[in-house]
Amino acid sequence: MTIILYDLAAADDRIRFSPYCWRTKMALLHKGLEFETIPWRFTDKETITPSGSTRVPVIVDDDKWIADSWKIALYLDETYPQRPLMDGDAVRSLCKFVNSWCDMSLNKALRPLALLQVVAILQGKDADYFRESREARLGMSLEASCADQSAAHTSLIEVLAPTERHLSDQSFLGGGSPNYADYALLGSLKWLHSLTGDPPLASDSAMQMWFDRMLDLFDGYARRAPTAQS
Amino acid sequence: MTIILYDLAAADDRIRFSPYCWRTKMALLHKGLEFETIPWRFTDKETITPSGSTRVPVIVDDDKWIADSWKIALYLDETYPQRPLMDGDAVRSLCKFVNSWCDMSLNKALRPLALLQVVAILQGKDADYFRESREARLGMSLEASCADQSAAHTSLIEVLAPTERHLSDQSFLGGGSPNYADYALLGSLKWLHSLTGDPPLASDSAMQMWFDRMLDLFDGYARRAPTAQS
Repeated sequence: MTIILYDLAAADDRIRFSPYCWRTKMALLHKGLEFETIPWRFTDKETITPSGSTRVPVIVDDDKWIADSWKIALYLDETYPQRPLMDGDAVRSLCKFVNSWCDMSLNKALRPLALLQVVAILQGKDADYFRESREARLGMSLEASCADQSAAHTSLIEVLAPTERHLSDQSFLGGGSPNYADYALLGSLKWLHSLTGDPPLASDSAMQMWFDRMLDLFDGYARRAPTAQS
Repeated sequence: MTIILYDLAAADDRIRFSPYCWRTKMALLHKGLEFETIPWRFTDKETITPSGSTRVPVIVDDDKWIADSWKIALYLDETYPQRPLMDGDAVRSLCKFVNSWCDMSLNKALRPLALLQVVAILQGKDADYFRESREARLGMSLEASCADQSAAHTSLIEVLAPTERHLSDQSFLGGGSPNYADYALLGSLKWLHSLTGDPPLASDSAMQMWFDRMLDLFDGYARRAPTAQS
């Protein structure tokens, strides 16, 4: 049974840039489950109505609809216990913290580097929707929120200081092998990578070496995914 | 065999305020190991020379000297495998990330709320040492670095957003029971609590409820510890 994943796409179908959908793709690959992605755009709300959500990732597995990347990860580990994304209560809880840290601290630091790049790869009503919804949420124009790129880079380096130190002597957040914490972090950086062809990491950093290891996983799935500038 | 812990103290011996020593005390309690603390002050460098470190925590266990809270945690789990602080490679790695996040993101956000309070509970050469070493590191006076308390509170709330969300539906960072990630986080908040009698948490927050659970552990050890304002 092939799992269907609704995957956020740019005007160009091949560009899949959602940090949350990347978590789900890496999770499906980790578990060795067969899946097929359907390109989905911000305004395609009706196509995912059965999930109860208006946002992706959404998966359909054997007629069951599940939305939200964290809930999907829990569903996959419960339904397909082999190759756990999070093995045991303590790992699951600590991964949940890393997941929240990516959502609330890291993605916030990445936004000034990403938002205008997102608009640039959308068209028509999707571009309008993205701009209007994000400007309402931020209380300012996208241009204003992205005005100081140098400050954004500085604060990104600050936010990433703990992962940089961590990965200087560990292969993965999960230790000797990657787990869902790594996929959450990969999602955030793959967001920028999908938009610009480059993650915003120093070339000699431990983070960049980790990012390369992550791109190599699963026969280079994340490395092969086309990026907006490639 | 009783383990000796050199524990940072204020001019008043009873006030033990180091975030890093609090990690070690909670770790020793978690493992049910007998220990005795020796009050140590910033300028007592010679007393811990055999450890190779100039800072605490330092433990002495059966003539072995071990410095650095993270190395002590690893030593304790290796030497006394019962009641692990971090059970398995993935948990250890994820706890190490939380530990680094406390060091580099949370403690940095707490500094403007803490530094002048630290000076206030020290005397003589210890107060001078603390002020001089910190001002050199910060490149400004302690007063300047603590000038904007309102901004410091705002940025603390931002940094703690992921733990606040996490603890809204989990008892501990470690899941159903506390592990070393919780002790690292407790250390940071116990720093402020030791200095002011109050952690800087909203009374109705999930973090405050977690903090109360942490103070209750081990017969209320951390709750019973005198604070500077009590």
